[in-house]
Amino acid sequence: MANPTAAMLVIGDEILSGRTRDSNMHFLANELTRHGIRLTEARVVADDAAAIVTAVNALRAAHDHVFTSGGIGPTHDDITADAIATAFGVPITCRADAIALLQAHYDRAGLEFNEARQRMARIPDGASLIDNPVSTAPGFTLGNVHVMAGVPRIFEAMVASVLPTLTGGDPLLSQTLRVQRGEGEIATAFGALAADFPDLAMGSYPFVQNGAHGTNLVVRGTDPARIDAAMTRLAALFG
Amino acid sequence: MANPTAAMLVIGDEILSGRTRDSNMHFLANELTRHGIRLTEARVVADDAAAIVTAVNALRAAHDHVFTSGGIGPTHDDITADAIATAFGVPITCRADAIALLQAHYDRAGLEFNEARQRMARIPDGASLIDNPVSTAPGFTLGNVHVMAGVPRIFEAMVASVLPTLTGGDPLLSQTLRVQRGEGEIATAFGALAADFPDLAMGSYPFVQNGAHGTNLVVRGTDPARIDAAMTRLAALFG
Repeated sequence: MANPTAAMLVIGDEILSGRTRDSNMHFLANELTRHGIRLTEARVVADDAAAIVTAVNALRAAHDHVFTSGGIGPTHDDITADAIATAFGVPITCRADAIALLQAHYDRAGLEFNEARQRMARIPDGASLIDNPVSTAPGFTLGNVHVMAGVPRIFEAMVASVLPTLTGGDPLLSQTLRVQRGEGEIATAFGALAADFPDLAMGSYPFVQNGAHGTNLVVRGTDPARIDAAMTRLAALFG
Repeated sequence: MANPTAAMLVIGDEILSGRTRDSNMHFLANELTRHGIRLTEARVVADDAAAIVTAVNALRAAHDHVFTSGGIGPTHDDITADAIATAFGVPITCRADAIALLQAHYDRAGLEFNEARQRMARIPDGASLIDNPVSTAPGFTLGNVHVMAGVPRIFEAMVASVLPTLTGGDPLLSQTLRVQRGEGEIATAFGALAADFPDLAMGSYPFVQNGAHGTNLVVRGTDPARIDAAMTRLAALFG
């Protein structure tokens, strides 16, 4: 079975200014790989409605799934939900089930469910809510777009609740052979071997350790027997 | 003066599979901010020629500068230089000055300057070389696209040699006020204040410390006096 594809859209000025280092992309990449969904593109855009709309529409047309992070909090710079509604051309309102969740949460905490916090109940028409076990304010899925928080602990919890609902493909497997030779030494033979396995992806990643050049040779695919066959030949060449 | 804009394109299967966590985007974001160039978009694509060509052409049309990382080594999966040539519709050949640099490097190291290593001298017509003080194999600039290595130490060295050649704008400044209140407490007043400073960008970033909710309020812009004025009002509101 062909693996479904996915794209990620990271939303936030703080990533592009360098203030914050994104960790959600790396987390999602590993989770998708395990789930047999191929992450084939990622983008980072600013807190800018037009940029979000353009990116969401490009990505949802090109991929089976789109995962967004960031911009669903209570402040004026949290514009993701509205931008998603614009991208889909649907209305957005404060939804009763989201209001009920948040009202109960703030009642328990003894905090006022004020106008700013009510913003977090704004959900585009037709979306289903994504559970937020950390701080209640929900994410949502609309069409093939999964809209999640930027705070890593919340993003990770939302991914954990969304992924089991998606049909994955065969797990994307990889094996690595670490060789104590530079990339330039092994490139020709490695390239020839890669050409013999068009169903696998092979990459080489150089490193320097104690002043010596080495290379990690990585073989990726979905068929364990084919990966084993490639690793056997790699080991014979360079082991 | 309006600040020039830039985009980054990270190229590599290893980022999208989750094997490697990219650090070049965060490094570049900070360097550009210091240099007064506004990073407004970033993308990550696989080692796939069509994906690279499409992304490069979209980004170079929309931004003053494009910075790429990855895919310029000696192995079969290093296809960035060829993809850039395709994107610009120009020929690509092994260039004499790049060959001379690499030949001297491998002569010094007592290593064979073999066919795979000669691949690293493939440079699209019309490009200028970017110095690589770490491992010699050059990057290049073609039009407004700066093509650099993915290995962080080499990427960082190449950025250091490219940035001084680019005209930046006023430095992009920021100040942060850390408040011990949740985002929902401060959102309405913070939004109203942000509306009074349309020339500045203001963002709020929640955190939890020892179980208590707090928020970092960040003000960004190029005019130090305006940022100071905004910070004074923020401190009066929330300090």
